[in-house]
Amino acid sequence: MESSNVQGKKVAIVGGGLVGALNACFFAKRGFHVDVYEAREDIRVSSFARGRSINLALSYRGRQALQAVGLEEQIVSKGIPMHARRIHTLLGKKYSIPYGKKNQYILSVDRANLNRELLTAAEKYSNTNLYFGHKLIECNAELGTLTIKRSGQLPLEDTYDLIVGCDGAFSTVRKQFMRQTCFNYSHEYIPHGYMELTIPPRDGDFAMEPNYLHIWPRNTFMMIALPNMDKSFTCTLFMPFEEFEKLKTGEQVLDFFQTYFPDSIPLIGEQELKHDFFLLPAQAMISVKCSSYHLSNRCVLMGDAAHAVVPFYGQGMNAGLLVQQHPSSFGLVMISVLQMREHVNSTWFIFRKRINNLLHTLMPSTIIPLYTMVTFSRIRYHEVLQRWKWQEKVSQEPHILHNSPALCCKLLTMLRFLFALR
Amino acid sequence: MESSNVQGKKVAIVGGGLVGALNACFFAKRGFHVDVYEAREDIRVSSFARGRSINLALSYRGRQALQAVGLEEQIVSKGIPMHARRIHTLLGKKYSIPYGKKNQYILSVDRANLNRELLTAAEKYSNTNLYFGHKLIECNAELGTLTIKRSGQLPLEDTYDLIVGCDGAFSTVRKQFMRQTCFNYSHEYIPHGYMELTIPPRDGDFAMEPNYLHIWPRNTFMMIALPNMDKSFTCTLFMPFEEFEKLKTGEQVLDFFQTYFPDSIPLIGEQELKHDFFLLPAQAMISVKCSSYHLSNRCVLMGDAAHAVVPFYGQGMNAGLLVQQHPSSFGLVMISVLQMREHVNSTWFIFRKRINNLLHTLMPSTIIPLYTMVTFSRIRYHEVLQRWKWQEKVSQEPHILHNSPALCCKLLTMLRFLFALR
Repeated sequence: MESSNVQGKKVAIVGGGLVGALNACFFAKRGFHVDVYEAREDIRVSSFARGRSINLALSYRGRQALQAVGLEEQIVSKGIPMHARRIHTLLGKKYSIPYGKKNQYILSVDRANLNRELLTAAEKYSNTNLYFGHKLIECNAELGTLTIKRSGQLPLEDTYDLIVGCDGAFSTVRKQFMRQTCFNYSHEYIPHGYMELTIPPRDGDFAMEPNYLHIWPRNTFMMIALPNMDKSFTCTLFMPFEEFEKLKTGEQVLDFFQTYFPDSIPLIGEQELKHDFFLLPAQAMISVKCSSYHLSNRCVLMGDAAHAVVPFYGQGMNAGLLVQQHPSSFGLVMISVLQMREHVNSTWFIFRKRINNLLHTLMPSTIIPLYTMVTFSRIRYHEVLQRWKWQEKVSQEPHILHNSPALCCKLLTMLRFLFALR
Repeated sequence: MESSNVQGKKVAIVGGGLVGALNACFFAKRGFHVDVYEAREDIRVSSFARGRSINLALSYRGRQALQAVGLEEQIVSKGIPMHARRIHTLLGKKYSIPYGKKNQYILSVDRANLNRELLTAAEKYSNTNLYFGHKLIECNAELGTLTIKRSGQLPLEDTYDLIVGCDGAFSTVRKQFMRQTCFNYSHEYIPHGYMELTIPPRDGDFAMEPNYLHIWPRNTFMMIALPNMDKSFTCTLFMPFEEFEKLKTGEQVLDFFQTYFPDSIPLIGEQELKHDFFLLPAQAMISVKCSSYHLSNRCVLMGDAAHAVVPFYGQGMNAGLLVQQHPSSFGLVMISVLQMREHVNSTWFIFRKRINNLLHTLMPSTIIPLYTMVTFSRIRYHEVLQRWKWQEKVSQEPHILHNSPALCCKLLTMLRFLFALR
């Protein structure tokens, strides 16, 4: 629909999370009448979001989306740049692996704050209304009708030109899609759960170097820590559910941390660790795939409702904020999980990363590190996957470059350079 | 639960199709109180089941299940044995490929008749009640409660010790499973649709050889025909939906059949073909996978509700009647689709089939043809898959038998025998 003929067109956005609030801004900016229905209360009033991750890694794709609605600077100013991964070995050694080039970084941002800012931005448009405590009961994608439950009032019914389902991994809007012939669907829980812990500030400052994403890779499980504006860190422990279930007492938790994350104990605090570990059960992680994101031109799914992903590549929010492009991001995510969990602390991984970065410097448009393509570019996800597979092939079988003399020549120069370095 | 302490235990079976009716017999036989809730009317009164396939291929697994409730003879007597596939080439040539050994066959049975017999058998148990026109609205797997809609009456609510969901690929019972953490789910439509046509009897007899499953393999699509007790055949045309959509007039249908299935036109009848093709749209085929079939020990899924499969291996009913064993049957089914559609008419396929059958004769417990394992045995599906992969490997790399001198010796004998045949 063009801006010229959107006058009077009504859009219902189901869900006022990050994706819903940003979509409200986009549609309002284009002149649509926008109603946002959020089941929970306004988080700007009651800011409790149990069980959702506290901070997120904002990267290029997400920033581009925020820029398009004029919010980039505002959000970036409340984020903490992370230039590199900071690896914590079992023996307490630490070293860094940069994310990209010197000026490339991702941002640790507060989920609740980002959501608040997006809601406030949406509300500034006079053609937008936000309705909290309004829960979708059902919708009809053919007719564009919604039935909404409101506490203490009769259910609301209304008709829209477009329904945008931003209602998360357990989307109610998506239920309309489920019996549609030729709509394929799958969801899968990974065997890992996650749990959040806190490293409080020390003497009014960060207890560890702030401009890093700290990682404790331990094969089948790992812990990460992201910095917050209040100088604390949020730690997230990822571990198979069956491992979580083995830890039943504070002493067992302490033993476990002493074995695997000894340097984190004084940072978190012994008593706090024994206590906080049992505040909430470990949370599940789901990935959702749908074979199409729209239904009869009147209904579309966005964000987690369309393609929930596991958090390891930091792409859930970034892809959700940007318009959905291709469901193949799942492949990428699984590659990333393996990299983070197992390879990130292997010498070979680091060596290959350095080679890759070097290749990237020599041939910036030919060889681009996987992480750089995902995090610092807007190359479509499926192209990222194709390019990455090709690059992997080149690095293993350089003779496939025979057909490309220019590339071959570059590669030879580079190899000579490498040998000269030895 | 043991027979001794099932007295007074109540089982609700949701769905009175083949799987539901047979399960009613099983539970009633063991002494449970059984209530069957079927949304449709009793097919013994109004026997119209639009869009479901008319006949089915009953094989060993299904027969074993019927035997266990004393119904095997009764059903088999109303089935037509099919000893072999009867291939119809494009040029009108016909040849046969046996299903197994001489005494091995599958049975063409009438779905509606089988369902009627199973319902009547269930009803004979005094501890069983059948409720038709009773549609499940929702159930609670924790409490064992059901809410059932009845026309012209208030909804029925009742509590059971066990709820058995036999309500098909679009199961309502399964909805309870969907938000359960760590319950993985997927459904997928294949790009093919199917349409049924009829070859009526000719001069009071079958118009083609009756004791075969007739196949017209044509690469991306195919037609099959199964014999019925009234001496007609039911033809099923499998074809990508986009191909169905191209045929808009009777003349186009006739042209299409003249190009691909010329020998079937006089059998179906020119006018009937042009007319019947447009009676119903092509039907979709879905496969459903669930990561577990039970919920909190009070609710279990059976048949299509648990694992709908595409019909090409004739395992939907046979696996549904037998207690579910392993979800890996999907792999088998996809192998079969490819075999039926593409390979069944290749010389290489036939040659390998003959070799396999020969190997089976020489080493009956070592090499068993894939089809024989699936259709004429009760080897668990996942074992079938493992054995088949191993057999394929052996036939391609016989040296892997080195570690097994006995097998190796047998194989050598067999190879000598083969060479002697040349």
